[in-house]
Amino acid sequence: MNRIAEKLLRIISDYADGFKGAFNIREDGQCVGRQSTPNIRIDTKEDAPGLVIHVSPNAQKEVVYIPACVTHGAVDDLVYNDFYVGAGADVTIIAGCGVHTDSGDMARHSGIHRFFLEKGAHVLYKEKHIGTGSGTGEKRIDPVTNAFLLEDSVLEMDTVQLQGVDSTVRKTTARLAARAKLIIHESILTEKNETAETDFTVSMDGEDSAVDLISRSVAKGSSRQAYHSCIMGNCRCNGHSECDAILADHGTVNASPELYAGSIDAVLIHEAAIGKIAGEQIIKLRTLGLTEEQAEEKIIEGFLRA
Amino acid sequence: MNRIAEKLLRIISDYADGFKGAFNIREDGQCVGRQSTPNIRIDTKEDAPGLVIHVSPNAQKEVVYIPACVTHGAVDDLVYNDFYVGAGADVTIIAGCGVHTDSGDMARHSGIHRFFLEKGAHVLYKEKHIGTGSGTGEKRIDPVTNAFLLEDSVLEMDTVQLQGVDSTVRKTTARLAARAKLIIHESILTEKNETAETDFTVSMDGEDSAVDLISRSVAKGSSRQAYHSCIMGNCRCNGHSECDAILADHGTVNASPELYAGSIDAVLIHEAAIGKIAGEQIIKLRTLGLTEEQAEEKIIEGFLRA
Repeated sequence: MNRIAEKLLRIISDYADGFKGAFNIREDGQCVGRQSTPNIRIDTKEDAPGLVIHVSPNAQKEVVYIPACVTHGAVDDLVYNDFYVGAGADVTIIAGCGVHTDSGDMARHSGIHRFFLEKGAHVLYKEKHIGTGSGTGEKRIDPVTNAFLLEDSVLEMDTVQLQGVDSTVRKTTARLAARAKLIIHESILTEKNETAETDFTVSMDGEDSAVDLISRSVAKGSSRQAYHSCIMGNCRCNGHSECDAILADHGTVNASPELYAGSIDAVLIHEAAIGKIAGEQIIKLRTLGLTEEQAEEKIIEGFLRA
Repeated sequence: MNRIAEKLLRIISDYADGFKGAFNIREDGQCVGRQSTPNIRIDTKEDAPGLVIHVSPNAQKEVVYIPACVTHGAVDDLVYNDFYVGAGADVTIIAGCGVHTDSGDMARHSGIHRFFLEKGAHVLYKEKHIGTGSGTGEKRIDPVTNAFLLEDSVLEMDTVQLQGVDSTVRKTTARLAARAKLIIHESILTEKNETAETDFTVSMDGEDSAVDLISRSVAKGSSRQAYHSCIMGNCRCNGHSECDAILADHGTVNASPELYAGSIDAVLIHEAAIGKIAGEQIIKLRTLGLTEEQAEEKIIEGFLRA
């Protein structure tokens, strides 16, 4: 593993000179380290680049790391990872991604993830994205996530775009069976001329399924963000979505949250708020000794974590 | 004026054996009565069917009635009405529409309205839509509204679709100059196999302009409704939208409210809620002696008026 990869791993996936438990490290399209455990088997995908990960029902409070890095320009890495999570398993997946280029060539990673949660499975999926390097080449991360949640399963997705990603298009779809629950916290920070597009389609097909989708975005510089979600309630179910954005400089945001109630027993709620940081908040923190810039940073940090 | 027209007029435009002040009555594509007043001049449009209405700055708290009726099948009435409202004028426009067919033929009215509000003008626009008759012919009302609000002007739109309209496609656009204000209350009731589609595009182009858009819909029977709004804040401005829906029987609703902040000084907020009537509300009213049906009707009535 090269130095840049190591640096990126520390940021995106809690790497500290190695991982405990199951892991696979992807560097510039190659596997540079892998370990399976009795309950988590990581295999090479046969029909396409990527992994097939089987989590046995015996896995309880286990962690699997699958970070991916692109460490130089002229790499366009496309990977397909499938997760089969057994009935009643409880697993945390750490799946960060960093792209780095010091040249004029593009560094890109596209991860196509599919999650198959068996009955009662519980998955916490954590993902941090970052772009680094002094090159003018575009840094892109374009993730696609398709999740299939069987009865009583729970998928929590906690996704963060830290900074430096020139362009991202994120597409997430999910289908929920009875009593399944999907909880998504997404936060995206864009600066300069960066663009971010995110799109969620969630179909609640089983009685008493539920989705809670919270998106926070901060658009600084001349960056542009677009948010679209479609929450479909096709039965007795509960959907809630919330997309809030803070603007700074010349940042712009388009938020387009869609609710479809195809059953009178669907309860769907949405809230959205877009605006800049309130002046009073800045003043308050400045009286505590912070500069205006520091105050802004603090507020944005808190907002993205909320 | 025929009997059906008279009946429709009473429902949609407070008609009581005549109107006081300025009016134009349109029946099956023809003008069957018109009156101008010193401050409100109603002319025939020269390049297309319809009216050109000039409201002078002297008009204060005046009312103009422009109801339109289609009283039998095989009428597809298309009308273009332009409103020029002088600086500082204050006028109420009553513009209901009723379509009636007792045959298998379609009765349809499409009103293309343009509003030009000069500085400081104030317009209250009220509109009720209804479909009646025992025929199997489709009853359609497809209004298009384009509003141009100059500095400090205010347009309030209060639009209600009562019942019996088989299909409606409503399109509303508005452009707001500095300190202009647009307030929209829309309520739509659909039943049986009716469909309703409503689409708002509001562009806030002048500093301190504001929009408040409230949409209420009730979808009963097997009816289907789709709501889309796009509120664009291109400067320091305030936008708020709210779309709430009650479902009954097999009704479905799609709500897609879009917010675009093209300036960091735009403050945009949206809320949406879709669901059926809460059981407790029905029980409460039943303990007061109402039947379940009466209770439901009361709740829906209150909801649409709120």
